[in-house]
Amino acid sequence: MENERLDRQLSFILELDKMKEILRQTYLCDASRRENDAEHSWHLAVMTAVLSEYANPPIDVGHTMMMVLLHDVIEIDAGDTYAYDPAGNLTKRDREVKAADRIYRLLPGDQAAFFRSLWDEFEAGTTAEAKFANAMDKIQPILLNAASGGLAWKEHGIRKEQVTDRNVHTHEGSEVLWQKTLEIISRYFD
Amino acid sequence: MENERLDRQLSFILELDKMKEILRQTYLCDASRRENDAEHSWHLAVMTAVLSEYANPPIDVGHTMMMVLLHDVIEIDAGDTYAYDPAGNLTKRDREVKAADRIYRLLPGDQAAFFRSLWDEFEAGTTAEAKFANAMDKIQPILLNAASGGLAWKEHGIRKEQVTDRNVHTHEGSEVLWQKTLEIISRYFD
Repeated sequence: MENERLDRQLSFILELDKMKEILRQTYLCDASRRENDAEHSWHLAVMTAVLSEYANPPIDVGHTMMMVLLHDVIEIDAGDTYAYDPAGNLTKRDREVKAADRIYRLLPGDQAAFFRSLWDEFEAGTTAEAKFANAMDKIQPILLNAASGGLAWKEHGIRKEQVTDRNVHTHEGSEVLWQKTLEIISRYFD
Repeated sequence: MENERLDRQLSFILELDKMKEILRQTYLCDASRRENDAEHSWHLAVMTAVLSEYANPPIDVGHTMMMVLLHDVIEIDAGDTYAYDPAGNLTKRDREVKAADRIYRLLPGDQAAFFRSLWDEFEAGTTAEAKFANAMDKIQPILLNAASGGLAWKEHGIRKEQVTDRNVHTHEGSEVLWQKTLEIISRYFD
């Protein structure tokens, strides 16, 4: 019995290896290549560990790290949808829910329910932890874009207003970090 | 004041982007390319979240995730030392301590001390959390090696005894996971 449980957990862990091959639009800081989902998720978890003191209400750091580590596993099936792709974003939710139904169910029932609930919490964005996790998810590519000379923004002709419009909720995770990010955006675009 | 603190935290976060370009010897499961340190660290944190129930004594999951997320940042300066490279392993500790002295000090003092202490804890390997973290760090490449048809092992002519010799302490983190890993090793080599 334990062995069947462990086998399911290991198959989930091996399935997640595919995250290392899903490329995002954002480039690494040195602009050498685009970042993948595993790297992005790792960076968000590190940011959560280092920056949690700026969360608006205090957050459960371990819970938030777990949320950001796994929030993109649905992209194994659904692919990465670029933030500034209106057509892709119309079908995004349907593709991602279908992916969540398959991928989390690789796990034993109790863990499938738990990790799926973490993703639902991230998507709903109403708890303090989900608001902070969403803020990390939005701020990290801005930091990388600014560091790489705005390479991904230039490739897609992104304007400052598109970045700020997309970030109307980011301050809900952290007012301090959003103000700092706004400075970085303004320094780049103005 | 807060701004200087936040600037230091952000420079640490951007410095860590280099983890995405430090290649390990282990290949991805599909053998398409070698894995990097950011991906490896992400995978260990996910494994910690999914497999913590098998820790010998119960562990603090958040603390252990933080440990594995950051345990390899010293490789930004010290490089990755292959597990089966005796010459490299003679100088490894010196190179890594020097790296830790520089990299953690990018952070504000309190956080520099905290994250450095996490690395020291990982290296000492005496707490339940450090034993489990070290077990994840050893088991993950075995899972990937077995999945990729033993590509890195073949390239370096690694024998079964070298793998088991290197893993004499892995059972201290989790007897259950070490028994399972031993099955996987035997299935591959025997």
